[in-house]
Amino acid sequence: MFQQVLNGAAGRISLCLDEVMAPFGDLPVVEAMRYASSGGKRLRGFLVLESARLHGVDQARAIYAAAAVEALHAYSLVHDDLPCMDDDDLRRGQPTVHVKWDEATAVLAGDALQTLAFEILASDAVSDDPKVRLALITSMAKASGAQGMVLGQALDIAAETASVPLTLAQITHLQDGKTGALICWSAEAGARMACADVTPLRNYARAMGLAFQIADDVLDVEGDAALAGKRLGKDAEAGKATFVSLLGLVGAKARAAQLVEEAIAALDPYGNAADTLRQAAQFVITRNM
Amino acid sequence: MFQQVLNGAAGRISLCLDEVMAPFGDLPVVEAMRYASSGGKRLRGFLVLESARLHGVDQARAIYAAAAVEALHAYSLVHDDLPCMDDDDLRRGQPTVHVKWDEATAVLAGDALQTLAFEILASDAVSDDPKVRLALITSMAKASGAQGMVLGQALDIAAETASVPLTLAQITHLQDGKTGALICWSAEAGARMACADVTPLRNYARAMGLAFQIADDVLDVEGDAALAGKRLGKDAEAGKATFVSLLGLVGAKARAAQLVEEAIAALDPYGNAADTLRQAAQFVITRNM
Repeated sequence: MFQQVLNGAAGRISLCLDEVMAPFGDLPVVEAMRYASSGGKRLRGFLVLESARLHGVDQARAIYAAAAVEALHAYSLVHDDLPCMDDDDLRRGQPTVHVKWDEATAVLAGDALQTLAFEILASDAVSDDPKVRLALITSMAKASGAQGMVLGQALDIAAETASVPLTLAQITHLQDGKTGALICWSAEAGARMACADVTPLRNYARAMGLAFQIADDVLDVEGDAALAGKRLGKDAEAGKATFVSLLGLVGAKARAAQLVEEAIAALDPYGNAADTLRQAAQFVITRNM
Repeated sequence: MFQQVLNGAAGRISLCLDEVMAPFGDLPVVEAMRYASSGGKRLRGFLVLESARLHGVDQARAIYAAAAVEALHAYSLVHDDLPCMDDDDLRRGQPTVHVKWDEATAVLAGDALQTLAFEILASDAVSDDPKVRLALITSMAKASGAQGMVLGQALDIAAETASVPLTLAQITHLQDGKTGALICWSAEAGARMACADVTPLRNYARAMGLAFQIADDVLDVEGDAALAGKRLGKDAEAGKATFVSLLGLVGAKARAAQLVEEAIAALDPYGNAADTLRQAAQFVITRNM
């Protein structure tokens, strides 16, 4: 049921990305951009659309903000998969960009996907109010740059060569940047587009983003690689501290379930109108991909 | 004389970049961002400041747009120097980022420098008018993304494995994207900040940007590596078509000189007020770095 809602959003976001990249021609780097930004769960884009619906923002406008965050997310995955980073050859069940093309194309395609995200947010398709577009751009830059996603990635890299495994507080801080900040941006986007208070959705997304990451660590241990569409067991192999290594499988699952309860409670101010977001919070710890 | 003006602008831009990165802490990835965005000629930032002066735009505002384009330029250099791209170990006389740190840090530092460029342009430090900030963001995204700088880079990579060397028209198209688009953005920025016509500065920058690239090809053949601060002779070594291989040294210099004349003529509408920009055009074909 929720999966159908998510799939519907995913389809609309893909069409929007096709539209914005239509004028870009068909050079390998552009084909790589299309390839990298197709597929996936589209959880971030879905959160944008759903928080927009909750605030009465036109879906025809919100779809562009959803496409922007999926372009940004796709850039981060392409660069994250590079040999010098996580060195992954499989993503969403398909060869990663540097495997299908080459490393240079992967670097450039990621670069241009990041640029595209900001270009989309700056366009009047997103909102007639220039201040709303700027607020979306500024918050996305903070969520994804040296104080957000890149910070998380850098902490992750530093952890690989550290002599002492990370503590729970350190992993939480790392994940706040690496995945949490962009999930927060997505959930807050609709409130931002309506010039409404972002606090309830921020609290929802913080708890949900952390639950999402704990579920990822659980999947890495006991998931099905064919369903997940990527190589699993990597963290244990690398001897990295994860929520599972620190809390155990049972403890990690319990913590994730507790965070989902927190996320759901944060939605109280919206009443029943937020039921789909509540289902989304449940989804992140029951998914198998 | 002009070199002093350029150096003065460079110093002010460095201070501004220091200021905007001050809250970022001192993780290696942030140190790499600072390292990569320090030094250099600052030609693009200078063009922003000078076109702003020409249009009566407050230098205290324009400095942020100048810092933004230098952050964007720095990102492109860090990624361009990567082993999978141009594989350069020296830049501005110093080890490149992936040599001084590692490839992962270079990818992330470049990524975050791009993000920073858009974050700076979105801030009210640049302009009180939200529409001006959005116009700067949209034009920078177009100049640097899949239809601008990344397109030029991708064409450059494709040329390396092509069976037939590029023609003059193809190299010109490639360089329009690779270096021309961002030089145009810089020269136009002041007009954009003043909501004035960008056409004269666009014509100036188009001719000047191409002259700049031809001069680069000339430097690659007969420059002094110590002064240039980078490895030279790479294009001939790689058998790449360049303006020099297609026009000869004498022909390339003549074409560059002709383009500088065109650039200078494009400034006629501004009268004597544009003399510093005229000197800048002369500078690009007389520089030794």
